[in-house]
Amino acid sequence: MRIKASEEKRFLQAVFDKDGFSREDGDLLADTLVDADLRGISSHGIQRLAWYTRMIKSHIIEPGNKVKVLKETPTSLLVDANKNMGQIASSFAMHSLIEKTKKIGISLAVIRNSNHFGTAGYYARMAAKQGLIGIALTNTRPLVVPTNAYDAFLGSNAFAFSFPAEPHPFVFDGATSIVSSGKIQVLAKNHQPIPGDWAVDSKRHVVHDAKKVEDDLSKIAFTEHQPGGGVLTLGGNLESNSNYKGFGNSLVVELLTGILAQGPISADTNQPGKHDFSQFLLAINPDLFGDLETFKKNAENMFDRIRGLDHIPGSTIFIPGDREYKNYDQNLKAGVVIDDQTAAELQKIGNENQVPVPEAL
Amino acid sequence: MRIKASEEKRFLQAVFDKDGFSREDGDLLADTLVDADLRGISSHGIQRLAWYTRMIKSHIIEPGNKVKVLKETPTSLLVDANKNMGQIASSFAMHSLIEKTKKIGISLAVIRNSNHFGTAGYYARMAAKQGLIGIALTNTRPLVVPTNAYDAFLGSNAFAFSFPAEPHPFVFDGATSIVSSGKIQVLAKNHQPIPGDWAVDSKRHVVHDAKKVEDDLSKIAFTEHQPGGGVLTLGGNLESNSNYKGFGNSLVVELLTGILAQGPISADTNQPGKHDFSQFLLAINPDLFGDLETFKKNAENMFDRIRGLDHIPGSTIFIPGDREYKNYDQNLKAGVVIDDQTAAELQKIGNENQVPVPEAL
Repeated sequence: MRIKASEEKRFLQAVFDKDGFSREDGDLLADTLVDADLRGISSHGIQRLAWYTRMIKSHIIEPGNKVKVLKETPTSLLVDANKNMGQIASSFAMHSLIEKTKKIGISLAVIRNSNHFGTAGYYARMAAKQGLIGIALTNTRPLVVPTNAYDAFLGSNAFAFSFPAEPHPFVFDGATSIVSSGKIQVLAKNHQPIPGDWAVDSKRHVVHDAKKVEDDLSKIAFTEHQPGGGVLTLGGNLESNSNYKGFGNSLVVELLTGILAQGPISADTNQPGKHDFSQFLLAINPDLFGDLETFKKNAENMFDRIRGLDHIPGSTIFIPGDREYKNYDQNLKAGVVIDDQTAAELQKIGNENQVPVPEAL
Repeated sequence: MRIKASEEKRFLQAVFDKDGFSREDGDLLADTLVDADLRGISSHGIQRLAWYTRMIKSHIIEPGNKVKVLKETPTSLLVDANKNMGQIASSFAMHSLIEKTKKIGISLAVIRNSNHFGTAGYYARMAAKQGLIGIALTNTRPLVVPTNAYDAFLGSNAFAFSFPAEPHPFVFDGATSIVSSGKIQVLAKNHQPIPGDWAVDSKRHVVHDAKKVEDDLSKIAFTEHQPGGGVLTLGGNLESNSNYKGFGNSLVVELLTGILAQGPISADTNQPGKHDFSQFLLAINPDLFGDLETFKKNAENMFDRIRGLDHIPGSTIFIPGDREYKNYDQNLKAGVVIDDQTAAELQKIGNENQVPVPEAL
């Protein structure tokens, strides 16, 4: 079914209010989820609400806690998210980096003791909207098997990069692994198979049954019972196709998040009492090197040339972000898509909180 | 054949001296190529000398030119490599960033009007040896086909990331594409087939004949005659295996190099008079967030746990850099490997310059 984005937001704000988030924090959380659904990134939209709700009930997320700044310099910020949602600490930190970067050219923040932060692109875009280059990273629960390994160890470890451009900032946003686990969740909820070589079993045989993979990933990510296997690194199953490069990209994120924040690495976030995630944010002022309008023009010109390259008939060359901006405009009019399982979950959450659920359009 | 690394260095220093490089610049260039050969990265070792020599003869490289600083702030450096080798400007810039970063926590440099800079890892490691996190990027000639496209447009666009660790810094260093063109060059020189899905023809059919791909890439990279096809993005030939993520990684490098430096993008470096490359360097002081020794210990602990994961029998789980450090120690004793074609090229260059060529061990 489809629901109006404004109704989705109202519902989420009301639920987050009942959960004990401040008005400001609840509005932010609702905005990040609705934004993802509008962009067609349903893996990071309202389908995560049931999971968030479970984590609040088990005190992995503490909605009333305030962000703490542990250390600050003119170029940096070390933040304790204080077991609240990652969105709250990340939005706070990126606002601070935007100010710092406008003064001094570049700055970075590391966040510990955090939770899921929605899409990484949300924070990278905050910088780009201010004429800055933005980067956002997070580690996650363990889901991804290193090159040649049988067991998941790495997080799906999101990476987002945003660069000022017209009519929209350039946004490249996604897991460093071949896909995010959320994408497999959505296929499983819709009873669809996995269309590529995304996941393997305990002997590194590729599995296309989304439900089986989703079941295994739930155990891998949330329990100490490890069935083996997991999501592949970018590059796929074979070392001969350079899957060690995807592994390398994942490790870069591990080092800049869990290690630099002195929180747990992804592999340890499924251990009791070690659930917390770490995030890394960076902002650069391109003004250090030239004129913003020239950068925007040159970037857009490059994108247009790529979009216009000769290509496979029936396919489209999408610049990262193109598909999401197109979805955004369409879904704002037609409503955001909610799968049946998520609709049932929302009904349950609505009932529990006495909040009316958005009606199908 | 194998030759002694010290002999390789002596030979290169003598040749670079005859080419008109300063003693200091020639020593640096020789060091970067010998370092690559010692690490087993022969794609970026002395096999590049014949290419460098051709570029010097055609004044694409100007060995006597000095690096110019165009703009400097406490956190940044904009450098004009002045048509000299990328190694010279990049080493100069990273030395400056190390000083800046020790004072202010983070700094970055952009280099324009540059040439090939050897391995990106060389500059990232410079930072890590000083207890800093280092990043180095370069654009290249056009070699890589975007998702769904028939023609090469992107550079192979190297990315290196180094993080302090013991006994060696962590170094992840490679093309953002599925492989560098140098790797295909080495297979072609050794009459070996391509072992994975690395390159496609003008209709995106995978090609495993290294000589054919190498011939096509030479045209794509160096002439205006475009036979079509090229190297694939990380993720391979299919959109369903997320090759758009490899495409995204390549675009990030394009934006931070050619666009930010206001030099040509990779696609335009095969045009007459627009040969120049751009580089991007970044250094971060982890000291902003905690204690260096703790970071090193935690990183190494993570690497050891990954190395010890259960894995495919007969395979090894290499942390990025492991293989290269192992090669380094072995090749220092046994000598670096020189393929027959490169040996013949060195003989010719030695004769032309009246420099004795290293003898086979």
